Parts: sequence; structure tokens; C-alpha cells
Amino acid sequence: MIVVLKPNHNPSQMESLISWLREKNITIHTSVGQANTILGLVGDTSQLDVDLIAALDIVEDVKRVQEPYKNANRKFHPEDTVIQVGNTQVGGGNLTIMAGPCSVESEEQAVAVAKAVKAAGATMFRGGAFNSRTSPYAFWGMGERGLAYLKAARDETGLPIVTELTDINQLALFRDVDVIQIGTRNMQNVDLLKAVGHQDKPVVLKRGRSATYEEWLMSAEYIMAGGNENVILCERGIRTFESYTRNTLDLASIPVLRRLTHLPVIVDPSHATGKYWLVDSLAMGAVAAGADGVQIEVHNDPAHALCDGPLALKLDAFTPLAGKLLALHAALKGMEGQA
Amino acid sequence: MIVVLKPNHNPSQMESLISWLREKNITIHTSVGQANTILGLVGDTSQLDVDLIAALDIVEDVKRVQEPYKNANRKFHPEDTVIQVGNTQVGGGNLTIMAGPCSVESEEQAVAVAKAVKAAGATMFRGGAFNSRTSPYAFWGMGERGLAYLKAARDETGLPIVTELTDINQLALFRDVDVIQIGTRNMQNVDLLKAVGHQDKPVVLKRGRSATYEEWLMSAEYIMAGGNENVILCERGIRTFESYTRNTLDLASIPVLRRLTHLPVIVDPSHATGKYWLVDSLAMGAVAAGADGVQIEVHNDPAHALCDGPLALKLDAFTPLAGKLLALHAALKGMEGQA
Amino acid sequence: MIVVLKPNHNPSQMESLISWLREKNITIHTSVGQANTILGLVGDTSQLDVDLIAALDIVEDVKRVQEPYKNANRKFHPEDTVIQVGNTQVGGGNLTIMAGPCSVESEEQAVAVAKAVKAAGATMFRGGAFNSRTSPYAFWGMGERGLAYLKAARDETGLPIVTELTDINQLALFRDVDVIQIGTRNMQNVDLLKAVGHQDKPVVLKRGRSATYEEWLMSAEYIMAGGNENVILCERGIRTFESYTRNTLDLASIPVLRRLTHLPVIVDPSHATGKYWLVDSLAMGAVAAGADGVQIEVHNDPAHALCDGPLALKLDAFTPLAGKLLALHAALKGMEGQA
Amino acid sequence: MIVVLKPNHNPSQMESLISWLREKNITIHTSVGQANTILGLVGDTSQLDVDLIAALDIVEDVKRVQEPYKNANRKFHPEDTVIQVGNTQVGGGNLTIMAGPCSVESEEQAVAVAKAVKAAGATMFRGGAFNSRTSPYAFWGMGERGLAYLKAARDETGLPIVTELTDINQLALFRDVDVIQIGTRNMQNVDLLKAVGHQDKPVVLKRGRSATYEEWLMSAEYIMAGGNENVILCERGIRTFESYTRNTLDLASIPVLRRLTHLPVIVDPSHATGKYWLVDSLAMGAVAAGADGVQIEVHNDPAHALCDGPLALKLDAFTPLAGKLLALHAALKGMEGQA
Repeated sequence: MIVVLKPNHNPSQMESLISWLREKNITIHTSVGQANTILGLVGDTSQLDVDLIAALDIVEDVKRVQEPYKNANRKFHPEDTVIQVGNTQVGGGNLTIMAGPCSVESEEQAVAVAKAVKAAGATMFRGGAFNSRTSPYAFWGMGERGLAYLKAARDETGLPIVTELTDINQLALFRDVDVIQIGTRNMQNVDLLKAVGHQDKPVVLKRGRSATYEEWLMSAEYIMAGGNENVILCERGIRTFESYTRNTLDLASIPVLRRLTHLPVIVDPSHATGKYWLVDSLAMGAVAAGADGVQIEVHNDPAHALCDGPLALKLDAFTPLAGKLLALHAALKGMEGQA
Repeated sequence: MIVVLKPNHNPSQMESLISWLREKNITIHTSVGQANTILGLVGDTSQLDVDLIAALDIVEDVKRVQEPYKNANRKFHPEDTVIQVGNTQVGGGNLTIMAGPCSVESEEQAVAVAKAVKAAGATMFRGGAFNSRTSPYAFWGMGERGLAYLKAARDETGLPIVTELTDINQLALFRDVDVIQIGTRNMQNVDLLKAVGHQDKPVVLKRGRSATYEEWLMSAEYIMAGGNENVILCERGIRTFESYTRNTLDLASIPVLRRLTHLPVIVDPSHATGKYWLVDSLAMGAVAAGADGVQIEVHNDPAHALCDGPLALKLDAFTPLAGKLLALHAALKGMEGQA
Repeated sequence: MIVVLKPNHNPSQMESLISWLREKNITIHTSVGQANTILGLVGDTSQLDVDLIAALDIVEDVKRVQEPYKNANRKFHPEDTVIQVGNTQVGGGNLTIMAGPCSVESEEQAVAVAKAVKAAGATMFRGGAFNSRTSPYAFWGMGERGLAYLKAARDETGLPIVTELTDINQLALFRDVDVIQIGTRNMQNVDLLKAVGHQDKPVVLKRGRSATYEEWLMSAEYIMAGGNENVILCERGIRTFESYTRNTLDLASIPVLRRLTHLPVIVDPSHATGKYWLVDSLAMGAVAAGADGVQIEVHNDPAHALCDGPLALKLDAFTPLAGKLLALHAALKGMEGQA
Repeated sequence: MIVVLKPNHNPSQMESLISWLREKNITIHTSVGQANTILGLVGDTSQLDVDLIAALDIVEDVKRVQEPYKNANRKFHPEDTVIQVGNTQVGGGNLTIMAGPCSVESEEQAVAVAKAVKAAGATMFRGGAFNSRTSPYAFWGMGERGLAYLKAARDETGLPIVTELTDINQLALFRDVDVIQIGTRNMQNVDLLKAVGHQDKPVVLKRGRSATYEEWLMSAEYIMAGGNENVILCERGIRTFESYTRNTLDLASIPVLRRLTHLPVIVDPSHATGKYWLVDSLAMGAVAAGADGVQIEVHNDPAHALCDGPLALKLDAFTPLAGKLLALHAALKGMEGQA
């Protein structure tokens, strides 16, 4: 940590700051410049509150050198995390394809879509039972019945199921789910983060619409601090001035997170734009940029889906896309082999 | 609602769309242009799902004419809502000044700060007992003990108390609080919104860091749909590309919300920027722009506050600011009288 | 165009608006709803000023149905534009790879880099002679001498040259350049746009850092309105709240522009992030998402480049990347063949 | 400047970096930590290129301590700059009110509006002769004739005139103008900045729609580096995700710039939102937050203005607003006197 002192600061204040830091076993290197004095703080600076130091009268600026997250940090965990879910793995060079409807609406629909996406190449079945919506007048999901339909789809296909948790009081119902998803509106719902950190199912953590990489990783850190290290990060677009699309997919998040963390990174091209006709290009782009997988909304009849219809691909568009994603993934492996 | 059909759409698809709409008692006016056919939908269009219609093959675009919120809409409730809290009112031409520390730390601190802000002109005492933080390693608040300190401060000063709720399971503890605050991270935590909608204490609803006016009002609608009409909206800065300040205060939210809704609007200049030395100018600007009040972090010793030190004004800076705000409010009333 | 009138508007004002529109040969369809009256305007509405109509007392809202650009609009020009530059083509299924240094620094450097990028597979040589910089104290480019070095590189390799124009007074010097680039800071420098519209060299038009798709296409329209239809759009990242990267690459711009316009679309992954180690993933993602090409900063010695060193790939990283991009492009063509 | 080296860097690379810096008369203080080595650079670091150093193999991060602007920096010029324009002053505790139409349309209109705004309390007359527009099909201004109308308005009223320059080739025509305005689209048109830096008329420099404070001050620095120190900064809203308003007024820019620079800061509430009914609140807020003035679009007939009608106040709304702004400014001076 680097502390820049104000020009003409009071030397006795500087002395008392330095004493206070030394009590905390921090070593201080002082550089006296013409305009500013700079303190280089060495030791376990993760215990220091940056904002508190920045608020001191004599301090002009504080700059952190170390990232504030530890469990999620690749520096302390260099190897990629690979997460086993049923018979499939997320990370480690595998291509995960999660597909299914925004909301499950009936057992027939759930089973039919699950069979079709499995046939196309999907590795997990996703579907909503408890939906988080912007409007109190929108469809809220089937709740517990929805979870039963998801399990029926798993029984028929063997695909692990992924579904969103919106309230800690639902957690007991999720005992038989394979992967718990935390949605974008709840990325900083810390009570929810702590709850999924104290159980051991893998968690898909969607990026908040306006979360920086660091804030997103701090939310992963909340989960991991509770003991659950099976976190899958899911980029789903951020909010920008461009309103033609619902959000702006941040493609750079893939290689940036690859460097900052050992956790797997997948991409949701459906919510990233809010338009089904953009899903194909964005899914292909995400895989070519190195994503560990994609999460795609697929519906047998998007025009009559009870929620998020405009995002969903029809089954007959999903099948060729899944084929292209698998072919692309194979082609990329081939290129790596040559390089 | 206006539905723009694609050029060269299939006439039989158009017929089936029109029949489906008529079944829902919607009247349709058709305008056939050179490039596009436009359907004007008249009737109770709030029951229609914009996204679902937009996903139909023959539809190019759907444009809503009516706002999706009702209870919060000034069109259906033209008079300003005025909220009684203890002996003080929010809205209706009053200037509400909520002041106090980010976290209450002890009974002595809470009482001392409450007495001082009351003497300066504050009308409510705010303080955190359950804090929502970005980092799992930051200070989390005193919890139930913090609530007791707040009540002690109220007992000593008579100031109503405002404090943040972060988890529905805490609600029982809040029975004796005067105003419940929903923080920016929880603006779309719909379970929390529904919970505070089913009780009758006034709610301060902070704007989500990346929430549009409409999304913010939809969150108010969640609370009001449960029966609680006592919602105070609090602008606290939005996330933009400018990173010198923590957020960007959106001053226009004050007159925009005045037009869209009948609910009172206050401003939090402390969190809007993250720098205590900007609070004075922003609080003055907010009051001059017509805000019903401000919420200001005040601390007896900001450099040693357990959280958000850099935001907090010292007591000796708050007192003259409160004086200026009251003088400004009086001067503005005088100008209105003359105009 | 759709005009929504205010509830309780004055009928005589509505009559005078309708008469005024009819004089302009606009046909009006009126839908009277419970809350609002809606006018559907049919005819050549491109002559109408949306803002002027929106400012009328009786108007609540105006919604445009037609895009405001014509020459750039795919609706009026369904086939892809393919632009011939020397022996190479931009658009039409070709993969354009523009590569070279931010600034040309010497004839030796220019020729050496041009030879190397050609060997790797680049189809054009890019390099700056007149650089647009944020700081008045930064390096400004070699100017006219820089143009001479670029031409020397073309003479040696046969690669067409692309270079940035920053001032209309330089235009005479650009007579022998193959493609003129308009930089992000100048996307709305309308005098520059008009100047390159009145000559016939192809133009690479970079997206402004905060330009919407529509504003970007309106800038293309400026160039095309002058008679020059050879415009290549270049996505180079937009400004968002995420400050870890210099900008956020907007991957969706590729399929969105493919739908809105017939002009070719390329991507600059170097400026999109400001970090050389992100270029590989973003370039791959862009090609997989359907871009017509990429523009990549390449330098023989980035650490000592006179400008934008952190963006530039070293030659020994560019060569395998160009190979991967060509292999990816071939693989994608193969998949299309099968689909 | 602070340079953070990568863990496990090569010591000989560090030695060569240190030698290179010493040749430039930079003193280096080295702090060796457990994870990182930090170099504190002391001396004239403004000559060093941050990006170049950041690109070195052994460097993890570079953090600048000094701002990159000098002439505009309050640290090197502590007193406020006060700019004399005709009989009026900008800065120094004065309230500047620039008012007038987006475009001057006739001599009669210009004179009539100028007389009216003067009577209301305006201190300068603003009006466009050369307008910068997003669409090539929009109204472009009256050009040289417009300048003549502006001068006629000055002759009749004595108000200094402010008008926008969009092209360096127009500069000769501006010899008789009082204040030159650089618009938001041209904030980084460096050729224009250099041109107005080499003449001595005061310049209103509008903030670019997506410019940071630092970039804006770097553009002021371009002008000042040419010798012209009379720069007035004008906040006019930044681009954010909120699309209800055209831009988001950044109120914090006023106190932030007050600290960073000695130049006067005014606010344009008309372009900040694009809606005339928001101008009153935002102008009041800006003055209460400490702005040195405002720039307001005023038109005798906004609904028929040739451009930007929705922004403009009618004369009969401007007069009471100007009265309120002057009363507010007087009231604020009174409060200061007491404090």
C-alpha cells in the first residue's frame, strides 16, 4: 500500500501515523519528493482500511498495490479451479453449455426442452422456478412446483440442473438442485452470498449490472470465505449508455478474470443484449475469446414464453448454434496444439 | 401501446395478433405506411407483456406510451405525498435533514452525535446497525446492540431514527425503529421490498447505483403494491465513467421525479461522491434544485470511524452546513412567495 | 413517426398541428385512447424535426419509427458493401487484417514492421504520421516525413497503407494514401467528415468513445452524403464505468451493425482495452462474432515505442495471432458451408 | 510517480530501469516488500511517459502522483483566475449569466432576445452562427450572416457576445467576437484547441460528453500551452446509462474543479438534460453548488426554433429564473458573510 502525504503536512502527524502503522507490524519506506512525501507500506496490509487512512488530514491519496480478495485470487492459487457437476466438469478446458427456458412452465415443457438441448450438445439444463423480476406485476415463476419439473427433466436426461435462488428462506428447497445460481440483482445481496457460502453446491455468480471486476470478485470472496470454493463466474453484460441492447457484453472480462482469478468464467449472451438474434454471434465470440462455457435461454415457443421471450432462442436455432460452438471449441483446441 | 410491424409481414399473422388482442378487450387502430404498418393499442394495456409482443415474428418494435407503475404515478395521484414521522413531516414543503454516523459504535457516541445534529437543525437521526459492505472482511455493524444505541439516542433527543434493513429475518427487530432504509445494493432485492411493503413504517428507498428512474419507481411500486404508501425516494449517485468521485450525483432526478411521482425525494450527498469535502456544495445544490431533504453522514471522529470515514463530515463542519441549508430553504420560500 | 398527445390537450392546437403536417404531405392516422391520443404519421417523415415536434405544448412524446440515416441504411441497400483497396477487399466474406505501429518512427522501422506483418498474413499496413493525443506534451507523430515512411513500406511490400487524418488542412498530403482513418476523438468533427466525403478514398471511421450506434451511423451518413460510399466502420471500445480496461469492447456492435447497415465492420482490439495482453482474446472473439476484420497495433519494440506502447503487440506475438485468426476464419467458413 | 515491479522480476532489468531513470535526473527510493518491490520516483516526472514504463516487462503497475496538467493546475497558481470580458467579469465571485438562442435566425430575433435577456439580468449574449449537429440533414446555422446579427445585438445592448467555433478556417471571421466557445463534440479536436490557444480571446471550453475531469483539464492545457490563459470551463452533462434525460449534469464537477484548477467554472443546464422544464431546477442547483455562472438557451419561440427547440426556455420563463438566480447568488453571499 502506498500513502501519499499532502505537501506541507505536519511532521508530528506523520510521526504518529508511522507509529500507528508500526504497531500493526507494517514496515514503512519513506520517499521525500519536492512536492509530496510518499510512504511505502510493507507487510500484511490487508488488515488496513484504505478509506480510513485516506480520510486522515495529512493524507492526499492512498493507492492499494494488492488486490483485496484472497481466496479468489490467482496469485495465491495459480492452478485453474475445475468444478465437478454430476458427470460433467466446468473449467479445465471443457466447454460447458447450460441451456433451457427462463421459467419452467410444465413438466412436459421442461422434459421436452431438456431432451432437445441434450441432443444438441448441452451439458446442463437451466430453468427458472423462482424468478427475480423488475415489475411486481410480472410472472414470478412456478416456485416449488417448478423445482419438481426441473428434477423430472434431470431424471429423464441425466443433465444436471441449474436454477436461481432469490431468497435465503428458499434454501431448504434447493437441497436436490445441482447448481445454485445467484442473479445479477442479488450479486451484492450479502445475506444470500453468505448462505450459499455455507453449503457445498456449486454456485453460478452472475455479474451485477454495474459491478466492477473487483466488486464481482469480492462477492465471490463472500461465498468462498464461508467455505464453498465452487464458484462459477458468469458475465452477462453491463449497463452502459448504449440503449439499443439491454446491456453491453464485456468480452474482455474473460481474459481479465483468467488472469485475476482461478475460477471458471462463463458467458450469458441472452441477457447480455436482450435480443435473441444477437445470441449466435455473441456466443461464438465468447467461446473464441476463451470462455469456459455459455448459458443460453432456449424455449420451445419463445413468443408464448411467460417471461423473457425476446431473449430466448427457439430450439431449431439452438441446435445448429450448439453444433457450431462445439466445432469452434474443437478447432481452437487444434490451433493450440499447433502453436 | 404502439406496435410497429415489419415491412412485408404475413397478413394472416397480423390477423391472428389482432384477434388475440381483441380477446383481451384491446381496441386496435391501424396505420398503413409505405414502409411499416403501425398498430395503436387502446384499453388496459398494462396487462400486456411488452417483451412477449416484441418477440413475435411479425413485430419490428413495441413502444409503451403509459408508464408501468401505477401507485407511484403522479398521473393517478396528483397531490404530493406528505409522510408523518414522529413530530416531523417529509415532503409538503418541509426540509428534512437526516444526519448521523454510518455505523453506531457505542451508546455514548450515538447520543452525543444525535444531540449535536439536533442542535444544528437535523430533523431525524440516522445510523447503521446492520451494514451492507462490499468486502466480507469489513466492519458489519453492531447489529441488535446498535439498534439499542439508536433508541437511546432517540430517547435523549426526541429525533426519529432511520436505519438500514439488509435481511428480511431482521424485520422483527425493527419494530421500534421509525423509518426503515433499503440500501442501494438491495434496491432490487424483491423479497426485502415485499417484506417492507407488508408493514407500515415509512421506507427510505435508495436508488440502485445503476437503476433508471423507471426501475427505481418499479421498486417503489413493489413496496406500495403491498399496501405501504409511505416511500421516500433517496438519490445517492449513479455509476458513470467518471471515477474521481465514487458515484455521480444525478441532480436532474429531483425535478424529474417531482413530475413522475407524488412521493418525496431526498438526496444523500455523502455517498454520491465518497469525499467529505464535496458534501457541502452538493447538499446546497440539492436543496436549491428542490429536494425535500438531505441525508448526511456525520461523525464525531471520521478518521477513526469504523466504516465510510471518508464520507463523513465532522460535527464542526455539519453545524454551519445545516445552518446554510435552513437559510437557503427559507430564502427559496421567500422567492416563491414573490414570483 | 408516432406523436403522443398530452391528455386533455386543446383540440384546436391538435387541428393546427394536423394541418401543418398535411401541408408537408404527411398522412395522419389518429387513435383516441382513454388516456392519450396517438397520431401515426405516414409519408416522408425524414424531413420532420423530432425535437421541434416534441417541444410543442400539446405533445407528450414523439417516437421515430424510421432510422434517420439513409445512405448507410441496409433497408435501402440490402447487399453488403465490398470495398476494393489495392489488391485486397474489405467486406464480402474476406478477413481484413490491418497491422502496424501507432506511430511510424523511421523508414527502417516502417519497412521492417510492414514486411513482418505481411509475412504473418496482414492485408494492410497501418501507421500513424499525424497522431491525436490527449496531452499537449505527448508525441505528435512525424507528420509529412511519417507519410513518406509509410509509402516506402508500401513500395517494399505492396500492402495498402492506412493512416489517420486529424485536420482538413492535411488533406492535400494524403493524396497518395490508400485508406484515410478518422479517429475516435474526431467522429463528430463534422468539418473533417464533410472533407473526406468529398474525396473518394475509403475511410475507416472509428466509433466515438461515447457514440451510440445511431450517432456513429449518422457520422457515416455525413461522409456518404458527400458522395463517398466507401466507409469502413471500426469498433474500438466504448467508455463505461469499468476502469480496469481503458474502454469496453462492444462485441454486439458487430451483429447489430450487420443488420442496420451494409457497410463493413472491423474491430480494433488494441485501443478497446489499452492492454496488449488482452488483444489475442478480443481479436479472436471479434472474428468469431463475424467482424470483417481487425486492426491491431504491432511494434518491433513496444517498450520503447514513442506512443501507445502498452497497446502494441510485439512482432513475435502478432505472428501466431494472425495465424490463429486466419485459421479461425477458415474454420468458420467451413461451418457455414455445413449449416 | 510510483512504479510497482512484478514479483520475481529479473534484478538486472531493475538495474537497467533505475539507470535509465537516473540519466533523466530522477531520484529513486526503493521499498522491498514480501510480494512486490516499489520504486518511488522523485524529480521532474512530467517528462516520463507513464504508458511506456507500464509496458516494460518487469513492471506490474505505475501510479502517477502528480497531475499531468500544469498551467491549469491550482497547485501552481493558487489564486482564482478572473476573466474580463467587456464590462463584465467571469470568476472572482461574480455571477455570469450567458443567455440566448441556439441559432440566431435574423437580426430582429437576435436584437429582441438580447434586449430581453439583458433586461432580465443576463451579462452576456450567446447565440450560434456555426452549429455543430449530429445529422447532416439538420440546420447548420446562418454562418457569417449570423455573426453579423450577433454583433447587431451587441451594438444595441452592450452585452458581450459568445459564439461557437467549429472549424479553424472560420477563425478569421471571429475577430470581432468577444468569447469563443468550443463545443462538446470538439473538446478533443486538438487542432481547434491549438488555434484558440494562439489568439487571446477568452474561450468557453465545454466538457466532452464522456470526458473525465483530467481529460477536460488536458484540453484546457492545450489552449493554455499556446499562451491563452483565459479559459472558462463549462459543465454540460455527461453521458450515462440514464436515457430519460439527454445527459446527466455532474454537479460535483463544480467543487472538484474548484479544487483542481484556478479557472472559472460555469454550467449549461439546457444541454445537460435536453428538456426545457428541467432548466430552472438545475440552474438553481448549479449556482447554489458554487458555479461562477450559467449558460441558458432562451428563445422567443422555442417550438419554432430552427434547432434545439426542446432545450430552450421561453423569454417569459427566463425572466423569473434570472431573477431567482440573482437573488440566490445574493443570499449565498450573505450566508458567507455570516459564517
